[in-house]
Amino acid sequence: MTDTERHRKSGGRAARQATRKTAGAQREAYLTRLIAPYELASEEVLAMLEHNADTILEEIGVEIRDYPSAIERFKAAGASVDGTRVRFARGMCRSIIQASAPREYVQHARNPLNNVRIGGNATVFAPNYGSPFVHDLDNGRRYATITDFQNFVKLSYMSPYIHHSGGTVCEPVDIPVSKRHLDMVYSHIKYSDKGFMGSVTAGERAQDSVNLARIAFGGDLADRTVMTSLINASSPLVWDATMLASAEVYAENNQACIITPFILAGAMAPTTSAGVVAQTLAESLVGMAFCQLVRPGAPVIFGSFASSMSMLTGAPTFGTPEPATVLYTVAALARRLGVPFRSGGSLCASKLPDAQAAYESASTLIPTIMAGTNFVLHSAGWLEGGLAIGYEKFVLDCDQLGMMMTFARGIDATDNGQAMSAFQENDPGQHFLGTAHTLANFETAFYRSDTADNNSYEQWVEDGSQDAAMRANRLWKERLASYEAPALDDAIDEELQEYIAKRKAELPDTFG
Amino acid sequence: MTDTERHRKSGGRAARQATRKTAGAQREAYLTRLIAPYELASEEVLAMLEHNADTILEEIGVEIRDYPSAIERFKAAGASVDGTRVRFARGMCRSIIQASAPREYVQHARNPLNNVRIGGNATVFAPNYGSPFVHDLDNGRRYATITDFQNFVKLSYMSPYIHHSGGTVCEPVDIPVSKRHLDMVYSHIKYSDKGFMGSVTAGERAQDSVNLARIAFGGDLADRTVMTSLINASSPLVWDATMLASAEVYAENNQACIITPFILAGAMAPTTSAGVVAQTLAESLVGMAFCQLVRPGAPVIFGSFASSMSMLTGAPTFGTPEPATVLYTVAALARRLGVPFRSGGSLCASKLPDAQAAYESASTLIPTIMAGTNFVLHSAGWLEGGLAIGYEKFVLDCDQLGMMMTFARGIDATDNGQAMSAFQENDPGQHFLGTAHTLANFETAFYRSDTADNNSYEQWVEDGSQDAAMRANRLWKERLASYEAPALDDAIDEELQEYIAKRKAELPDTFG
Repeated sequence: MTDTERHRKSGGRAARQATRKTAGAQREAYLTRLIAPYELASEEVLAMLEHNADTILEEIGVEIRDYPSAIERFKAAGASVDGTRVRFARGMCRSIIQASAPREYVQHARNPLNNVRIGGNATVFAPNYGSPFVHDLDNGRRYATITDFQNFVKLSYMSPYIHHSGGTVCEPVDIPVSKRHLDMVYSHIKYSDKGFMGSVTAGERAQDSVNLARIAFGGDLADRTVMTSLINASSPLVWDATMLASAEVYAENNQACIITPFILAGAMAPTTSAGVVAQTLAESLVGMAFCQLVRPGAPVIFGSFASSMSMLTGAPTFGTPEPATVLYTVAALARRLGVPFRSGGSLCASKLPDAQAAYESASTLIPTIMAGTNFVLHSAGWLEGGLAIGYEKFVLDCDQLGMMMTFARGIDATDNGQAMSAFQENDPGQHFLGTAHTLANFETAFYRSDTADNNSYEQWVEDGSQDAAMRANRLWKERLASYEAPALDDAIDEELQEYIAKRKAELPDTFG
Repeated sequence: MTDTERHRKSGGRAARQATRKTAGAQREAYLTRLIAPYELASEEVLAMLEHNADTILEEIGVEIRDYPSAIERFKAAGASVDGTRVRFARGMCRSIIQASAPREYVQHARNPLNNVRIGGNATVFAPNYGSPFVHDLDNGRRYATITDFQNFVKLSYMSPYIHHSGGTVCEPVDIPVSKRHLDMVYSHIKYSDKGFMGSVTAGERAQDSVNLARIAFGGDLADRTVMTSLINASSPLVWDATMLASAEVYAENNQACIITPFILAGAMAPTTSAGVVAQTLAESLVGMAFCQLVRPGAPVIFGSFASSMSMLTGAPTFGTPEPATVLYTVAALARRLGVPFRSGGSLCASKLPDAQAAYESASTLIPTIMAGTNFVLHSAGWLEGGLAIGYEKFVLDCDQLGMMMTFARGIDATDNGQAMSAFQENDPGQHFLGTAHTLANFETAFYRSDTADNNSYEQWVEDGSQDAAMRANRLWKERLASYEAPALDDAIDEELQEYIAKRKAELPDTFG
């Protein structure tokens, strides 16, 4: 299939426009890294950290709260149980995982051209997750609504650099907690045809997500993974019923779980990077082993989310050196374990899409790619430690994601890349603009940013002296204005809506 | 010597204050990388690029303009000369360099505590270089003056993360071109005690720089390198008389030269990264070999400055993927050659210290460190493709340099770093804030940013809803207000001023 055909089929004027705007960059369903991951820690240090994680699991163990059936599963597999405390012999969780967890898997999307490979040298960018607030330059910071949610689904759908529609891109707080998972899953299906995540706030909401996905994908999902959902540990060393119940539903149905210890170093873990890494590995091993016990072969992703802390206020900090150190090290441990890895994103503590936001985001995103991360949640939009998603931030981050896609291709060492013909036809002191090699390569030579202003100072002043956030403000509005929904079969749409109406009628309205 | 003694001797209330502000971070004279450099290109590709550089030197050669003595030097060494075109047999320049150029050297500073090691796993941060304009939030963009120049020398002196005073941190356009080199060198000596760079705009100005340094350092410099100066090729494949004459003065006097092809890909080189790299190597080999022919053993740094180009306007672009690819690849070639490497910095095209500036700067600085760069010019302050230096940008960049110093230490795998005692004393579900391990490590656990706001949204609003640039505006003013000059012997100061007065009387006033 030619590239042109791909675009025609992948649908819509919006997709074609997005493609034209990034002329030269082929639209790819996910990022493929042709460069090696950066190995920050030595083999000896990695082996030591695995040993320490095993020591934690053997001597301290984890608490399994309010979920006796999980304790039973672990006991049956050979774990030592003392009330709610479960301890594991050295290597036990690793053996369970390595016996059945896939090294990589495909998450199917409504549009097969948007199927993503998760694992190996593939990296999938998904948008921000979980923010109760939304920010834009016009209205400042406010609670997010379902309209904001749908806007970000649309913006993700239109970006050639976002590969996955994500999950709770923001919390639609105008809809009852008990029901909003239905509207969120429906919005992903209706307004995008990229892969998405299911609800994890209760086992029955995970089941609703599976049921809606069955309708959208036309039947049983046993042979297809169509959701990758986010299961967090209650660090330190606790797994709770909500998360385990959701993980169980997904694993039973062959759907993928990202098993992520969410750690603010110093509070939920020791202050040191090596301590955070060992704990992350220990907690994640337990969660991934649980999924394999539920259904051997269910896709799991080893997740890590670690921030450092302000020593003045105890607030989480982002884009600092310590989380990058953790990220590189845990990524290497995931490779040794043999499962896909999730971490990073475009994280920051800033309240605005300003220089702080950008320094911090780049200082997270670059290690994310260099570490060889496979699934990147929060890759666009994140502000304020995750409390807000920003419209302008989203647009600016997407541009950086595009740069990563180019960077990850590495150096072109083909004859054309070597450009020796250009030297042969060009005398010293003459510029290369007119050489045949330059003319043949100029259009596709460089990544073309859609948010940077590279004009002269005088031209920039004439254009209104806009900073990056002001330019991004215009861009997200233009994009939403030109959005066209991907096709969705009317019968499927109707069935989805019927399911949702029925469930909403059954569920009470609860907030918070 | 204890750390406290170091600080007492290194002088001044300002230095002590700067240290207190970064509690926990020991003040180090330069960054020491305990992490390995990232190898982006394979050995095969690197060998191919060396082969291509040799092909360029053998078949096309370089033009040596208006400097017959340099042609004679190359001819005597075995090069093939055809008018001003000089061609080199394969491996010739490499052999000359490897026979005598030091793998690393020490640049001595007025204050021996500020001596820097250049090469190996050391990285030295120097400020911005060469901008005719200056920018700050209060006054916007305007021509730079000697007062601005001195302000940036002071700010560099006060920063614990800037290791070197740099050279033309900005162009003091209020002083005649023919004389400003005297005021610049004097300002570095008077207002700082860190290492500095000499003038390269004419051979006689290089000689003035050497003469002033002789006064400042009390005698002959044959046994001490006290300046590292910037020698640029006139790409493509031209070396001109101004730069060669300056390089000759410095090499004759055992002073270091950074030999840097300055390349806008697509104009001064082919569009492709592999083409830029081969040309950079070819041009730099010639310049470094020249220095070794002038004086075997004179310190040289292999420099690379490469930007990509806007396909719309031809303007240089920064922080894009292609320059990072070039940077990693040339750094590896410098290691293979066996000389120190200079590249990178905090480069951007933005006119303001906004999100664009920060994304682009981080996307340059992180590869700079990960590539194992030894000398980093433009590490703080750069705006607008180098046309301006920004006060706020300087402060924000310095904070990022501090983060790099922490990151480059890698993961702490000591017993304390492993933190197993913290796990032993802390039950699952309990936070670690009160553990003995946390209390022992908390103060020094995390890099402490002086520009990031990590407070709650509400607190941030109460503090005036400032973005990063506004906070940086306050910081540079506070720092300049608290500046205290390092000690300078009165007799030396007088001799410097006499030399400058005599030279100024001899020189005509020329501008531009």
